[in-house]
Amino acid sequence: MRAVDIIIKKRDGGALSTAEIDFLIAGYTSGAIGDEQMAAWAMAVVLRGMDDRETTDLTLAMAHSGDTLDLHDIASLTVDKHSTGGIGDKTSLVLGPMLAAAGMTVAKMSGRGLGFSGGTIDKLESIPGFRAELSAEAFRAGVQRGLVIAAQSGDLAPADKKLYALRDITGTVESIPLIAASIMCKKLAAGADCIVLDVKVGDGAFMRTIEDARRLARTMVAIGNRAGRRTAALISSMAQPLGRAIGNAVEVREAIATLRGAGPADVLDLCALLGGELAVLAGQVATPEAGEALMRAVVADRRALAALRAMVAGQGGDVAVIDDPTLLASAPTTLDVLATRAGYLAAIDGAALGNAVNALGGGRNRKGDAIDHRVGLTIHARIGDVLAVGQPLVSIHAASEAAAAGVADTLLAACTIVDAPVPAPPLVLEVVREGMTR
Amino acid sequence: MRAVDIIIKKRDGGALSTAEIDFLIAGYTSGAIGDEQMAAWAMAVVLRGMDDRETTDLTLAMAHSGDTLDLHDIASLTVDKHSTGGIGDKTSLVLGPMLAAAGMTVAKMSGRGLGFSGGTIDKLESIPGFRAELSAEAFRAGVQRGLVIAAQSGDLAPADKKLYALRDITGTVESIPLIAASIMCKKLAAGADCIVLDVKVGDGAFMRTIEDARRLARTMVAIGNRAGRRTAALISSMAQPLGRAIGNAVEVREAIATLRGAGPADVLDLCALLGGELAVLAGQVATPEAGEALMRAVVADRRALAALRAMVAGQGGDVAVIDDPTLLASAPTTLDVLATRAGYLAAIDGAALGNAVNALGGGRNRKGDAIDHRVGLTIHARIGDVLAVGQPLVSIHAASEAAAAGVADTLLAACTIVDAPVPAPPLVLEVVREGMTR
Repeated sequence: MRAVDIIIKKRDGGALSTAEIDFLIAGYTSGAIGDEQMAAWAMAVVLRGMDDRETTDLTLAMAHSGDTLDLHDIASLTVDKHSTGGIGDKTSLVLGPMLAAAGMTVAKMSGRGLGFSGGTIDKLESIPGFRAELSAEAFRAGVQRGLVIAAQSGDLAPADKKLYALRDITGTVESIPLIAASIMCKKLAAGADCIVLDVKVGDGAFMRTIEDARRLARTMVAIGNRAGRRTAALISSMAQPLGRAIGNAVEVREAIATLRGAGPADVLDLCALLGGELAVLAGQVATPEAGEALMRAVVADRRALAALRAMVAGQGGDVAVIDDPTLLASAPTTLDVLATRAGYLAAIDGAALGNAVNALGGGRNRKGDAIDHRVGLTIHARIGDVLAVGQPLVSIHAASEAAAAGVADTLLAACTIVDAPVPAPPLVLEVVREGMTR
Repeated sequence: MRAVDIIIKKRDGGALSTAEIDFLIAGYTSGAIGDEQMAAWAMAVVLRGMDDRETTDLTLAMAHSGDTLDLHDIASLTVDKHSTGGIGDKTSLVLGPMLAAAGMTVAKMSGRGLGFSGGTIDKLESIPGFRAELSAEAFRAGVQRGLVIAAQSGDLAPADKKLYALRDITGTVESIPLIAASIMCKKLAAGADCIVLDVKVGDGAFMRTIEDARRLARTMVAIGNRAGRRTAALISSMAQPLGRAIGNAVEVREAIATLRGAGPADVLDLCALLGGELAVLAGQVATPEAGEALMRAVVADRRALAALRAMVAGQGGDVAVIDDPTLLASAPTTLDVLATRAGYLAAIDGAALGNAVNALGGGRNRKGDAIDHRVGLTIHARIGDVLAVGQPLVSIHAASEAAAAGVADTLLAACTIVDAPVPAPPLVLEVVREGMTR
């Protein structure tokens, strides 16, 4: 078998065999196949596509290119959630405890933030003492408690890491099969039996149109189920941030409030829908509606809050913050950005919000940068709201007045106010489950 | 400007600007742009194409990536010919002298053979003493004599050299614009004012169909003329070798015979047609028909033979072989391959013939291999010929009886004999000149 023949086959629109895809990924991982051949192949994939069988083969080949996790000796079934990224997305902090409280086992590896998207691990590290870097034993202990969220350890899917960096410089990012395989290979390597995907759609999202989001969701659901993992997806709107808080400690505070029944409705609603799908996949309930009701019940009776407390305690964090979130570090300065005109809020530029949090020190521009967990934003308005002049749009939580003032104009410009009424965007647009027709 | 944006523009079907193409080729030549980016770009070009303006820009950028030749201080106008490669193609040996005899200046850089295609330089080096590696001064002296054929010297079109090697391993060879640019950039760098192209079509050729051959010919003619060089092309059949001889000394012998008026008709015919086009481009005659007549006249009155003699003398070769070609080295053994069935010759596998010459020692498998100038083949039958059992198909000129016997079966298999009559293929299928509609 020769790499060049595989490239030519894909270039000419052929479907690659499992053996050909395995050969390519094994060769690329070992270095026998070079970046120039993979780049040509990736461009051929962007322009010629891959079918679900090929995409699943690619996903499996990348999942098996490094370490893989198997927790079946300590958990009969584990569940996991993945979001394609959103500003202010604290679903993992809320959903994980809900799932654990409902009797499911959550073994989650998560990432640190880079650029304008925050990372779940960074958010959790706002809690004093919380440890995200776990040994294999500590991770397994967390699984046995029913809920663990840890930084990715080991060498999961190294082929994906290499290919992702290559795609970034060769104009081959925009391919639904390659994006789907890159997301799913890490989920497969991390060993989850049931997976729910939150595919974001909107101007600021990776998927700009509902058609693209639907294709990505359907492709990932097909991969998961072909690979023997029960998988479903929601397509949710990224027109505006989820909830009101953007940052690290502020998002943890909002997550705790949500688990106390006092958070923003959209955070609870999205988590209940995602959790409802997982409850069906895990065989706990018969319908998504029953699953959603179960999720709302474990919040209402505080069992989910107890699950969060158990996880924080188990990973060395100070549980006092669960009962009194004001104990979380606060930024010394808060500055409100006020509406300078009346009207209806028509759009919020999520990337501008994320970049502002970065500028405040709450995110990273380069891997390894230190972050200030205290800083962030509180968004006071939602799309469709009627606004008066002088009404607060955003509160800036900053390390200094100068830092707050430095991003105020950007944040004002990030909110588009118009004269005509604007409908509120839906939270969830579609659900994609196995066997749904294309 | 960033390479990744240029790649994305081409991936999405855009036409690249002159500045973008210059940036890409300059960066690739210097090493600032890596193989992985060029490979992705080349694949995008294969699948998205390039228009004539882009292809000309690419050609010029590659032509200017290294040394360029300008001979206008010693020749007001130089002419050149390029063939896309054919088994037994000795046109340069015949056409060069014809053009010089007709008063044109031929300054030709040529290659050595690799794989199953022979090189003009290897053939000329069959002549004792002939020097193909010339200093700049010796090359210019040859130009002043009116005819020089030398091995490529200097660093002509290094970007093409790099890109060609990359395309070979990344499945990006099959692109008319990339093929056209690769051929033409070397012609432009070598400084020819008038160029005639011999585009081969057929099963054994790079271009398998007349449509592809026409597209390549039209693209190269468009590039040449856009770049200010008068350019035309013939599309000729590669159904069978040109002439009867394949090898080195045997082809020189056949070229000399042709210039004596005693060679195979197809060799003379093709050279007269190619030369006729150049005579028009060079302004020597008004019509291709007049040009063809001029070419036949300089053969008939032996002026072309005299031009060959002058070139051989000027480049240190033994001119005695011109008058007595039997003085050229001969292989010690000749073995005839005989037809084992009666019928009509339907096909000759040119690649098999070329590979047989290689196996006999007459070609190179690797750059730098030594070659045996004596060995080769004489083809006795042409497509459409009626054959009887026992009639000679091919004579093998070999260094030993064992070597000859080693390729006999392959050569027999290379000739397909059928029961039904087969029409003789045309020699030239089409002529492509500037301004012809697409």
